Amino acid sequence: MTQPHDHIVKSYDEERQRLLGEILRMGGMAAAQLQAALDVVERRDDAAAARIIANDEAIDALEKEVSHDVMKLALRGPMARDLREILAALRIASDIERIGDYAANVAKRSTALNQAPPLPHTRGLNVLGQLALGLVRDVLDAYRGNDATAAQRVRERDAELDAQYTGLFRELLTYMMEDARVITPCTHLLFMAKNIERIGDHATNIAENVWFLVHGDDALPPREKRDETNTVARPDLNEN
Amino acid sequence: MTQPHDHIVKSYDEERQRLLGEILRMGGMAAAQLQAALDVVERRDDAAAARIIANDEAIDALEKEVSHDVMKLALRGPMARDLREILAALRIASDIERIGDYAANVAKRSTALNQAPPLPHTRGLNVLGQLALGLVRDVLDAYRGNDATAAQRVRERDAELDAQYTGLFRELLTYMMEDARVITPCTHLLFMAKNIERIGDHATNIAENVWFLVHGDDALPPREKRDETNTVARPDLNEN
Repeated sequence: MTQPHDHIVKSYDEERQRLLGEILRMGGMAAAQLQAALDVVERRDDAAAARIIANDEAIDALEKEVSHDVMKLALRGPMARDLREILAALRIASDIERIGDYAANVAKRSTALNQAPPLPHTRGLNVLGQLALGLVRDVLDAYRGNDATAAQRVRERDAELDAQYTGLFRELLTYMMEDARVITPCTHLLFMAKNIERIGDHATNIAENVWFLVHGDDALPPREKRDETNTVARPDLNEN
Repeated sequence: MTQPHDHIVKSYDEERQRLLGEILRMGGMAAAQLQAALDVVERRDDAAAARIIANDEAIDALEKEVSHDVMKLALRGPMARDLREILAALRIASDIERIGDYAANVAKRSTALNQAPPLPHTRGLNVLGQLALGLVRDVLDAYRGNDATAAQRVRERDAELDAQYTGLFRELLTYMMEDARVITPCTHLLFMAKNIERIGDHATNIAENVWFLVHGDDALPPREKRDETNTVARPDLNEN
């Protein structure tokens, strides 16, 4: 049965689908940037790092474009129930943009690391990075499939990334204490690890937005809470 | 002369003004949090730090509320020229929320610092923090007054904050090299300095959104560019 305004409704929906595709494309770019950044750390490849840093601008530009287009769509006066979808799209695009920033930061610091002799401590960074990459890919799939359960699983796995980050952080501190000559490169590695830990937080944000998209403001199920009762003396504080 | 729909237009405008007020209130809260965080570092006051960390939730909740209300306003179908204002409001609220996060992180790390004997190195952090606080306050004033010139001045002053950050970072590294026992507390200070440097970046983002609000997509005037040509060996890399 043909509804009144069928043509307008349909083209609004097409526009929505196009925007969803754009956001997922952004997400794919951010995941590829992270993968590439982890590779250049291992390969000590300054030229490739420079390309990653330059590529970040494309993600930034896409985020600006997407949020502009999402808002234009909102101004067409959709029904109130679309509010959730529009808000989620804006927030997810912004989280993807931040993931891209952090990946570019890892690449940037890799070129600084390359000024010093190779350190054996980059292996732990790669393990951490692969965990983060898994979270990013899986949460984008959850968004694509409108799958709140899969999103919730990503949210739970962030605790694993945090534990890995804590281990790496402490390990790096011991190297710094043992040999003052590695303090500067290990400082880079500390910040790189922090960047990757933050990527996990943004994947978690996206997971929460997928949940919100599917279930609205219904309370999120509890997740394994990082034990922060005795973190005050710990150097690897979980930050926001 | 009375326009048609005068009542609706007026109440839309009232709603806009109310939201602007909310965002500025959020900004005031974030600035107060930063001020309080800098104070607790000096006073080594764990209880006050815990209050700052708890207060951050209020800013987070306000950001969610504001972005929700801004979108509801957008859905009322304003004219296309309001798009800029709505986008700027969403982005500025999000930058303020991040500033609040970074202030809470500084407070969180201050309690970690308090587990160790006092260090003389917190003075530099305070100088850095006061510079950042000045940027935050001035950019909120620029937003309040719709003043693109004042916003542009804030943007230029971020280079000063970056220079101060670089100096502090290098200073902290030398302490770590001289005495392995201060490596852990100095790592906290490095991350605290980084948090404050990031606050400057978010103040700059807000400044750019004020410019966008006033001038649209007209190109921003150039600003003093951080010289990154020889930063590769520098431990204080400017990140995104």
